[in-house]
Formats: sequence, C-alpha cells, structure tokens
Amino acid sequence: MSELPLLEGVLKYIQENNISFCMPGHKNGRGFFNTSIGRKFITDILKFDVTEVDGVDNFHNQKSIILDASERLRDFYGSKKSYFLVNGSTSGNMIMLFSSFNEGDKVLVERNCHRSIFNGIIMRKLNPVYLENIISKRLNAPICINVEHFLKILEQNKDAKGVVITYPNYYGICSNLKFIIEKAKEYNMKVLVDCAHGAHFGVHKNLPKSAVRMGADMVVTSAHKTLPSLTQTAYLHVNNEQELNKVDFYCSVFLSTSPSYMALCSMDYARFYLEKYGYKDYEKLIEISEYYREKINLIKGFNVIGRKDIFVHNKNLLSDIWDMDLTRYTINLEGDYSGNLLLTYLRKFKIQAEMSDNSNVVLIFSPFNKREEFEKLYTVLKSCDLKNFKCKRIDVMEYGTPKMEILPYEVVNLETEIIDLENSFGRIAGVNVIPYPPGIPILLMGELIDGDILKTIRYYVKFGADIIGIKDNKIQVVK
Amino acid sequence: MSELPLLEGVLKYIQENNISFCMPGHKNGRGFFNTSIGRKFITDILKFDVTEVDGVDNFHNQKSIILDASERLRDFYGSKKSYFLVNGSTSGNMIMLFSSFNEGDKVLVERNCHRSIFNGIIMRKLNPVYLENIISKRLNAPICINVEHFLKILEQNKDAKGVVITYPNYYGICSNLKFIIEKAKEYNMKVLVDCAHGAHFGVHKNLPKSAVRMGADMVVTSAHKTLPSLTQTAYLHVNNEQELNKVDFYCSVFLSTSPSYMALCSMDYARFYLEKYGYKDYEKLIEISEYYREKINLIKGFNVIGRKDIFVHNKNLLSDIWDMDLTRYTINLEGDYSGNLLLTYLRKFKIQAEMSDNSNVVLIFSPFNKREEFEKLYTVLKSCDLKNFKCKRIDVMEYGTPKMEILPYEVVNLETEIIDLENSFGRIAGVNVIPYPPGIPILLMGELIDGDILKTIRYYVKFGADIIGIKDNKIQVVK
Ligand SMILES: Cc1ncc(COP(=O)(O)O)c(C=O)c1O
Ligand SMILES: Cc1ncc(COP(=O)(O)O)c(C=O)c1O
Repeated sequence: MSELPLLEGVLKYIQENNISFCMPGHKNGRGFFNTSIGRKFITDILKFDVTEVDGVDNFHNQKSIILDASERLRDFYGSKKSYFLVNGSTSGNMIMLFSSFNEGDKVLVERNCHRSIFNGIIMRKLNPVYLENIISKRLNAPICINVEHFLKILEQNKDAKGVVITYPNYYGICSNLKFIIEKAKEYNMKVLVDCAHGAHFGVHKNLPKSAVRMGADMVVTSAHKTLPSLTQTAYLHVNNEQELNKVDFYCSVFLSTSPSYMALCSMDYARFYLEKYGYKDYEKLIEISEYYREKINLIKGFNVIGRKDIFVHNKNLLSDIWDMDLTRYTINLEGDYSGNLLLTYLRKFKIQAEMSDNSNVVLIFSPFNKREEFEKLYTVLKSCDLKNFKCKRIDVMEYGTPKMEILPYEVVNLETEIIDLENSFGRIAGVNVIPYPPGIPILLMGELIDGDILKTIRYYVKFGADIIGIKDNKIQVVK
Repeated sequence: MSELPLLEGVLKYIQENNISFCMPGHKNGRGFFNTSIGRKFITDILKFDVTEVDGVDNFHNQKSIILDASERLRDFYGSKKSYFLVNGSTSGNMIMLFSSFNEGDKVLVERNCHRSIFNGIIMRKLNPVYLENIISKRLNAPICINVEHFLKILEQNKDAKGVVITYPNYYGICSNLKFIIEKAKEYNMKVLVDCAHGAHFGVHKNLPKSAVRMGADMVVTSAHKTLPSLTQTAYLHVNNEQELNKVDFYCSVFLSTSPSYMALCSMDYARFYLEKYGYKDYEKLIEISEYYREKINLIKGFNVIGRKDIFVHNKNLLSDIWDMDLTRYTINLEGDYSGNLLLTYLRKFKIQAEMSDNSNVVLIFSPFNKREEFEKLYTVLKSCDLKNFKCKRIDVMEYGTPKMEILPYEVVNLETEIIDLENSFGRIAGVNVIPYPPGIPILLMGELIDGDILKTIRYYVKFGADIIGIKDNKIQVVK
C-alpha cells in the first residue's frame, strides 16, 4: 500500500489530465484565471486558509466582511437573506428541513430526491408523503414531478406543512416549480427547493428561472457544482424571514465553527463572477453547447436530450416540465446500448463525464469549458463504434409508492432481521431499497412489502441492476 | 463596499504577513513544503479539487483509496476505526454524541465544553449533568475537571450512560483523563473525548498521552488546529466497534456527500507527516518552546504557564491535572494587565496569537514555526512597556452549576419573553448566559435563576465583561 494512499491516488487521477465535463464548476482551477483578483486568490490560495482572527469576521457571529459578502449574495440572488455553507448542499438541506418544519409535521416530498433529504426526514422526524415522478420512456429515467399526481396528493393532504422539490434533477430537467409553488401557497404550505444543480439559474434569459425569485421559501444551491467555487461550497437562500433565528441556530449545528476561508472566499468570488461576467459568459456557453448539441445529434446512435424529447403534458394540458438546463448534456443511447459503458469509453479518451446510468451519460459544463473541448467530445463520439456500448437494456419500471406503516425515524430504533426476499411478503422494510438505475427508491424504511414491490425488485434482480438494500436475494425487515 | 468583500478582506489580512502562532497548523502553507510530495500537493492544489469519479473512491461508500488511507489513520492512532471529517470537530462532536447516546440518556458533561457539545445535547435530546472545572487563581481561568466533584456526580448518577470530556482545554491543560476513564468504565459508562486541540498528542513522549490509546470510546481531534492540514479537517477515532453502523449513518448526516479532496488529501498528508517526521520534529519544537518559555519567564510581568503554576491536588491527593501541552504558550499577565490588550499589541508587531482573555494570551505552535519566530516574540515582549496592557482585572468567580428545571431541548420549543434581569429571580432561563471571560456558561437554557446566579451575573455586568445572553440588563426567560 502507498504511504499516502489518498493523496497519491488523487495525484494519479489528476495526471490523466482529463477534460472536465463534471463537477466542480471551476474546471481544474480555470474558473479563477480570467480575472486579476481570481489569479491573486489562487496563486496564494493556501495563505487564504486562515482562522477567525480580528479583521476577517466570524461566520457564526457576522459583523464585517462575511456579513457584507452575504448581503451582496442576497442582493444578487434576490432573497431576504443568504448564507454561505461550507458543508455542501447536504448541510443546506438539513438546515432548511430543520428550520422549516417541526417534529411530526406532514411534508410532501419528491420521491426522487437526494439522500440528504431522506436523512433529513429521519433526523427531523417528519411524516413524508411522496410525490411521484414521470418516467420518460425515451430517457429510460425519472424526469419530473407528475403534476396530476401532485394535485391529487395535495388534495388528500391539506394538513401538510410543506413541499420539498428537487429543481432541476441530475439531467438538468426542471419540474413545473412555478405551478407547484402557486398551488402550495394556496394551501399555506412552505416550499423548499433543493436546487443543488442550479446555482447558475436566472443568470441568463435562456437558463431556467431562479427558484428564489419564483418565491420558494428556502432554496439550497451547490456553488461547487456549476460555479467557480471550491467543492463543499453551497448557498442557502431564505425568503421566509420568520425562520431566520432557527436558520442561524441550525447553521451552528450543521457547519463547523472553523469554516474554511478558502471555501468562503471562493463563494464570494463565484457570486462576483456571475454578477460581473455571468450574462455574457453564459450567452457564449449556451451558444457553444447548442451548436454541438445539434452536431452530436447528427451522429447515429446518440441523442443529446432536448425539449422535444421530454416535454410531457398531462391530461389537463398542464405542463409537467417547466424548463431544461442547456448547460449540461444528457446523451441518450437508444435500445441495448449502455450509458455506463459510454462513460468509461469517454474517460479513455480523457473526457470525464459527471455520471451515467443504463441509457444516458450526463455532462456538466461551465463557462470555463472551451470550444475545443466540445469539439473533442464531438470527434470522439463521431469516431466511436456503437458496438462498444452494447449491453442489455434494463427498462425502468413505472412505480407506485408503497404504503408507509411506520415512520422512517421510528424504524431506526426498532429491531430488524435479514430474511429471504421470497419470505418478505407482508413485512415492513428495515432499509431503503434503491435500484441503480433509476436511483429512485422502490421501498423506504417503514414501508410495506406487497406483491407489486416484490415484482419490481425481482425484475431488477433478474436484469442484474445494482440494488442498494438487497444482498444475495435477502432483505432487512422490521422484526 | 468592496465588490468582493470577503475575498478582499482576507487578502488584506494576508498582506499583513503575520507570524502565525494560531491555527491552522500548516502555518500559511509552510507545513507542506518540507517534502517533495507535499510540494506537489500544494503547487497544484486546485487540481486536487476533484469530484468523486472512478479511481478516487467515495467517502460514503469507501472501497479503495479513502478506505486505505482511513486504515493507515486507524493504525497510526491505534483506534478500531478512524474517519476523515471535512466539517470540523463540530461534526465529529455531533457524530459521536448521536451514535453513542439515545434520546433521553443522562450524560455527564464537562461544563466548560465547546458550543458544539451544547448543540449536540439539544439535538440528541440528552439529559446533561454538568461536571465542574477548577478555577485557577493564577490563570484567572477554568483549568480542568474537578476530580472530587466528578466522583460525587458519578456516585449520584450511576444511571448515566456516559461522560463527555474536553482534553485538552484551550490553554493546553489536560484533565486527569486516565482516572476519569477508569472510573467511568467501572460504572459501564462510555467516555467521549473532545480532543479538538490534541491531534498531535501521543506523537512524542513529552506530549500528553493519546486519548485513543487510553481507551476512550470515541475521540474527536481537529487536524487543522495543530497539524499540516486544511481548515475544517478533523479525525474521528472509534474504539467502540458496536457503534460503527451508527457512526456511518451520522457521517452521512453531518458531512457533505461531496467532500473536498483537497481537505481529504491534506488529512492523509498530516497523518503521513506525523508518522514519518513527527517524533523528530516535535522533539525539536518542544526544545525550542521550552527554551523560550524560560527566557520569557525572566521578563518581568510575563509568565508562560508551566506545570508548577497549575498543578492541583485535591484533598485525597489525587491529581486533577494530568498533563500539559508544551507546544502552546499561555502567557499569563498578573494583576491589572489585560491579555486582550497584549494580543492586539502583538498583532501590531506582526505576531498573530490564537486567543486571549482577561489575563492570558494563548499561542499555538507547530513544527512549522521557526526559531526566529520565537525569538521575535521574545524580543517584542522584552521591549514592551507593561503599561500598554493596564486594565482593571475581572476576577473569574468560582461557580456552582444551577438547578436544571427543563431539559435544554425542551426549552427550544417553549415560548420565551425578555425581561429585566432584576425581575428574573425564580424564572427559568430561555438562553445560555456566558460571560467572556471565562467563557463557561453561568446559566444554560432550562436552568433556574436563583440568588447566586443573579449575584454572579451582576458581578460580571458591573466589571464590564462581555456577556452573551444578557443585553441592556435584560434576559430571555421561559414564559
Ligand atoms: C439534488 C442534490 N441535492 C443535494 C446534493 C448534496 O449536495 P452536496 O454534495 O453539495 O452536499 C446533491 C449532490 O450530489 C444533489 O445532487
Ligand atoms: C474544544 C473544541 N471542541 C470543538 C471545536 C470545534 O471544532 P471545529 O471548529 O474544528 O469545528 C473547537 C473549536 O474551536 C474546540 O475548541
């Protein structure tokens, strides 16, 4: 074993010198190179790793430069108050769930949400009612909130205290948040938005609208995912001023008392950058990305998903999808070709994609990606043999949400046992069961295992999907 | 206002170019300069800011380089399992409290503990019984657990599930942890140690013993405070293997799903550095620090605290203090001279101390401080006029812990009102009241305001101490 396994392991990866079509948004540091202040920052970046001494303020008792920077952040995004988070959108999701809801509150939550939201539901002891996603046959993936289902659930759960939505999802697809906010407000429900992938939204007219400006109560965005900011950085935007004291308290719970000034300064920089250069640079990025989207779509076998592929109207002609982020690609492979194999293939050609599933590869861009990099992607795709990616397709199944018998947080304290899947009918799940793809939980802790669920699990097992929560055909259930 | 208030504010501070006798332990980046791999790391440090792609492992599902590095960390510190934390000792304290205790558990907690422990008590809904510190007249500050009081509390609370100790405190003074662990084990209680300031303990024979090797159940240390590691980095060492599943879960709650690889690699580096160069380099550091300790002690008016100044034996001749960290100075000013003014004075001479109180200044060293820097400190102290620091001394009062009427977490959900201090007799505190100095809470949420407390608060108000929780002679109480 290496004497420095982690450091040397990362070094080895760095030396591959890949094009970054993935996080973080600064693209190997390039994001700080365009401005003289950015260069000053990164040339001496370790010196920015200072502690909270006189003159550099205190995150948990802001009085000078952190306060000033937060106010600029607030003004730019148009919130009532904005926070710098040094522990990712994970901490943002925790802070917003804890400060918006009380124990036992019923909350409508998108089923296809990030793990930190599920964790938050357990920690805050919430009573979740899940909102289903539409599965796109084309993408072979969940794509957005099913508005019809949302309206039904809303009607049945008027006592819910709020709604938790992911906007956009990993594919850059945006549910109809405007409609969801309007409806939720009619019922006096709070709307929390996990906008981890949308820190750049609202900066240009061709980007999806900002959830903050649409009136969500709280919005979390990962600065690191798309902006020139270090990994672990995120913003929390609060419109709901009554909650500010609570937000301050939960910031002290979920964020270190020694926040990194490198991280803090990079967040200040990212806001400054967007404010000063955002419109112009996103204009250019979108132009390049659209140009290559069309070019790639001419290559047989690859389809970079566009509006036409996914736009869904439900029966009452209301749009489920609201918008799409044009600064990422979801490259879709039809039929029996695998996105996972394509990701590995691209890596061999020094192109690092963000993620893949059975049928798609997702690439994340930022203004710091160059035209040549898109050209390289195009060339590699154009010259590849589709046969490389041959692999039996696993069709993502439509899903219905199982019946919840015990609240998730209660399960944490109960005794469980591991039994054969075949004997689990009628039992209650002691773990979350999540097949990849599509990454949406089939079954969550506390839910009843019925015939439909078993059928779905068997289906994914049979086709060899990776299933978190199932091992050797066994499952953990409540005793 | 600056266009980049935070970044430019920090830049301004950096340009002062101060000697770092404060956190972080890498001392303006110097800590990475001694080795060729360290130089490789920092020369291209932004490139280390990668996301979790193939080959660099996944913190929350460790299989390769993070796992390997964790095992090296474990072996070096001698724990059963060790974790890299990217959200400071704050997250470590939360994770250890949540995984070791259940709601409602009675826990013996050092009253003079860090804010994150108080927050953890609220979040985990614990029933705390407080352990008192001895106040040193000499230091005019709390210095260690009062062992006699500990034994009394232990005897009265045999049903407690565990003990939470800070080791060392900010002054580098170590309570008699060995004795505390032995006693707690007799009563089947778990021992959790907040060793934020002691990541280097155990590396050299003249450093205090490692809490991990003394058999504590869980130990948190801030890598960033004393080691060559970035701010926000910390280690969690677990000896109690039964708790590992819970620790994994709470890691996913309190740590981002996108941990910074810059932070992770710096933690790997810090362990590597200690393992390879720690003994030799600490030997040298302690030699220098001892040499200047004696020299400074010859300057009239300044006393760098040593064993002789603080060693305390209680009636049964048991030592309350176990050891002292020789890699930091607590410069004590006698009588009516202020540590706070000394800290400001040192800064004018480009010496950045870590913290000060009424009577002391604390300086933190690491092997990356040079002999010349100690010499400069000596010269500045030798040539200064004590009159600069003249200031009425506030004697720290002995304290008794007030009676808890309502558990802290319950107060969070109760209505409170703000009333005149003079009318607060018999009421229950709705906030924590903490005078600086000494930074130990006089009164915590849920505790009864009696005559003694009022006398203490009035005393600190009269002498003009900063008191968190008291504003314009008013206090927040439960309705
Ligand atoms: C939708 C979504 N929310 C939240 C998070 C958590 O954010 P972070 O990794 O910045 O803590 C992620 C991370 O991938 C995410 O995709
Ligand atoms: C004793 C103690 N414990 C815990 C912490 C919290 O550690 P961090 O700031 O690394 O989150 C501190 C920070 O100063 C501390 O002094």
